[in-house]
Amino acid sequence: MTSGDILHMRRAIALAARGLGGTSPNPVVGCVILDPSGQVAGEGFHAYAGGPHAEVVALREAGERARGGTAYVTLEPCNHTGRTGPCSTALLEAGVARVVVAVSDPNPKAAGGAAVLRRHGVLVHEGVLTAEAEEVNAAWLTFVRARRPYVTWKFAATVDGRSAAEDGTSQWITSPEARADVHRLRAGSDAVVAGIGTVLADDPRLTARVPAPLRAAPVLRVVVDPGARTPAAARVLDAEAPTLVAVAEDATVPAHLSHQAVRLPRVPGGIDLHALMAELHGRQIVSVLIEGGPTLAGAFLREGLVDRVVGYLAPALLGAGAAALGPAGVSTISEIHRLEFAEVTPVGPDLKLVLRPKSSVDSTSSGPQSPKES
Amino acid sequence: MTSGDILHMRRAIALAARGLGGTSPNPVVGCVILDPSGQVAGEGFHAYAGGPHAEVVALREAGERARGGTAYVTLEPCNHTGRTGPCSTALLEAGVARVVVAVSDPNPKAAGGAAVLRRHGVLVHEGVLTAEAEEVNAAWLTFVRARRPYVTWKFAATVDGRSAAEDGTSQWITSPEARADVHRLRAGSDAVVAGIGTVLADDPRLTARVPAPLRAAPVLRVVVDPGARTPAAARVLDAEAPTLVAVAEDATVPAHLSHQAVRLPRVPGGIDLHALMAELHGRQIVSVLIEGGPTLAGAFLREGLVDRVVGYLAPALLGAGAAALGPAGVSTISEIHRLEFAEVTPVGPDLKLVLRPKSSVDSTSSGPQSPKES
Ligand SMILES: NC(=O)c1ccc[n+]([C@@H]2O[C@H](COP(=O)([O-])OP(=O)(O)OC[C@H]3O[C@@H](n4cnc5c(N)ncnc54)[C@H](OP(=O)(O)O)[C@@H]3O)[C@@H](O)[C@H]2O)c1
Ligand SMILES: NC(=O)c1ccc[n+]([C@@H]2O[C@H](COP(=O)([O-])OP(=O)(O)OC[C@H]3O[C@@H](n4cnc5c(N)ncnc54)[C@H](OP(=O)(O)O)[C@@H]3O)[C@@H](O)[C@H]2O)c1
Repeated sequence: MTSGDILHMRRAIALAARGLGGTSPNPVVGCVILDPSGQVAGEGFHAYAGGPHAEVVALREAGERARGGTAYVTLEPCNHTGRTGPCSTALLEAGVARVVVAVSDPNPKAAGGAAVLRRHGVLVHEGVLTAEAEEVNAAWLTFVRARRPYVTWKFAATVDGRSAAEDGTSQWITSPEARADVHRLRAGSDAVVAGIGTVLADDPRLTARVPAPLRAAPVLRVVVDPGARTPAAARVLDAEAPTLVAVAEDATVPAHLSHQAVRLPRVPGGIDLHALMAELHGRQIVSVLIEGGPTLAGAFLREGLVDRVVGYLAPALLGAGAAALGPAGVSTISEIHRLEFAEVTPVGPDLKLVLRPKSSVDSTSSGPQSPKES
Repeated sequence: MTSGDILHMRRAIALAARGLGGTSPNPVVGCVILDPSGQVAGEGFHAYAGGPHAEVVALREAGERARGGTAYVTLEPCNHTGRTGPCSTALLEAGVARVVVAVSDPNPKAAGGAAVLRRHGVLVHEGVLTAEAEEVNAAWLTFVRARRPYVTWKFAATVDGRSAAEDGTSQWITSPEARADVHRLRAGSDAVVAGIGTVLADDPRLTARVPAPLRAAPVLRVVVDPGARTPAAARVLDAEAPTLVAVAEDATVPAHLSHQAVRLPRVPGGIDLHALMAELHGRQIVSVLIEGGPTLAGAFLREGLVDRVVGYLAPALLGAGAAALGPAGVSTISEIHRLEFAEVTPVGPDLKLVLRPKSSVDSTSSGPQSPKES
């Protein structure tokens, strides 16, 4: 592995990141092609499901200069014929001599690209900047490896952790800037999830009121509603986006929910959230945003189903009122949910905190962590 | 006002800051002396009450080079003979031709230095970098102008605002690095205050276990204890530091508290905190650190007695357990206590947040806000 390899792979990862929020159910992928003299001849990234793959975009730009050159790809080139032809074939046809890969494809259907390339005499170098490339694909890798969506819990609160005053009023604790950022979070998720408590209390629309990236499907709204209590007039049932109402298997479903309702096993406290995640996985939902309330968020956390926490803290104090987070399965300090700060950014007058379980990506990782050359 | 003036005053403010935590009941002051050609000839700051004033230190370093030169002083030179002679006289004797002042002295006993200098033909220029210089002296200015100590409330909590788990266990939510920082906060305060609830629950020592700055008096420990319930064996009564137990006027004071107890008016909920502040002001306490618990902190906030909030947030979630802040006089969202983030710093794995009421210094300010030249 040369310093040039690292440089070009870092660029490929940056290209991949441009696809974030738009590629579901596909991964984000970036690609850089060098000509035989080491000059950059082409760049590309995968922008939306059904669109051209990163390698194809980059090869198109490189043209004949790719022959005898090197390709940097953040994810092992696919070997299956889906909506587009296999990328391994495209790289072979272009005459690329060496392929550098960050993350091996964990998807059994797609894997094998590296092996095919090697069989045809291409030098394949795997495991370059794996950790960074896994991070940009954290959602999709969780989707594939854990067979469930990647879960982000979002909350907004004062620095003393309250999201409403004593009398229940809460408009607005955080700033317009923070609320706009929430809309961007929604737009980049495949589904937005709220508990029935929130739907009954706030009647939210749960739509992303910002220009969304090009997507194969609109953002799905999901209400976790064991008793099928979502009112016919609830805004979450309007025509702006599709909605799924997750009800308990034994619920009496009213006519106005018959199209949206999906029955799931009941557990103490509500619906089996693992079953809900499996249901969403089956619907090709790669990433979900939990919008609350505190009860549902606590349940997700207790079940070990939170991969990322995004908190908006207002520089304000309430001292009383609803807490941002409800019971989360912790009764004594040794059971505390330990995370780490991944990002701390000012958003208007507020503070945006991004937290992740310690080394979340590595713990679910089964891919190669250290370089291996063939 | 020239850009040179701003540069030298900024340096004088940085010098002043070196005295923070050590000068009570005096202000922090910094001084820079230029020779007639504009070269820096001397620098100084006030380090501890009873020690030499900033101007004296700087003049000593400058020696004969001060004659015909300029002095930058963060606070109007004093005109009274306290433990040291008046600084206005020292500047006159040294033959300084021009004196640039950031903040006029609000202390009637000391004020008048600028007038004396002008009367002797010195060019005095007031109001340079006033806001910055007021900020470094925020504690002392509050002490003088509001006739009460500057109050900092410190808390440690999870990002969901809890400072203990459901069963009351709380050791340790924040990191050793954050706890060390709290000891530095204590060492820089004139008094550390805790409610009787905290004393009974945690039996804290409330001492600063770090090398303290040179101080005129050790850090005073204060227990807010209406019923005089502090036990004889409480660690807060040990010999490590002096302790004041603020009891209600009608309390029956046990023998073991007879030396420490001070009687204060009773109000609904406990002791009149304004009376406590006046008592501490009378004892020359310039700054206090409220260490909790949530009930007492809420009362200070409700009474408008919090000038600064320092929060240590651990990257962790509890979902249940004691809140960091108790009732603070807010029942509906329009009554929310609005502050602003003044500092956000990582401390080990935790996040340290410093918040202040919007433009706290300016609201109590009576000094000049814009430059005026004489
Ligand atoms: N600050 C923020 O960021 C934020 C965001 C959203 C909402 N909120 C506030 O939160 C409040 C509503 O929250 P909430 O806690 O009352 O309700 P919630 O969390 O929105 O919904 C809780 C309900 O979800 C259902 N549920 C289904 N499966 C569950 C499971 N496995 N575990 C737990 N619950 C499950 C249960 O419904 P059944 O009772 O039918 O069984 C439960 O009562 C509103 O006041 C809203 O304003 C704040
Ligand atoms: N996370 C942190 O940073 C932190 C820091 C410190 C403590 N704590 C925790 O806080 C808990 C104790 O807190 P707490 O809320 O029970 O007690 P507290 O705030 O320490 O003390 C409250 C008591 O102060 C007295 N008081 C006197 N004047 C008052 C006034 N004007 N307003 C309100 N109270 C007044 C009252 O005593 P009377 O009842 O005698 O009238 C009241 O009960 C402990 O568990 C401790 O571990 C956490």
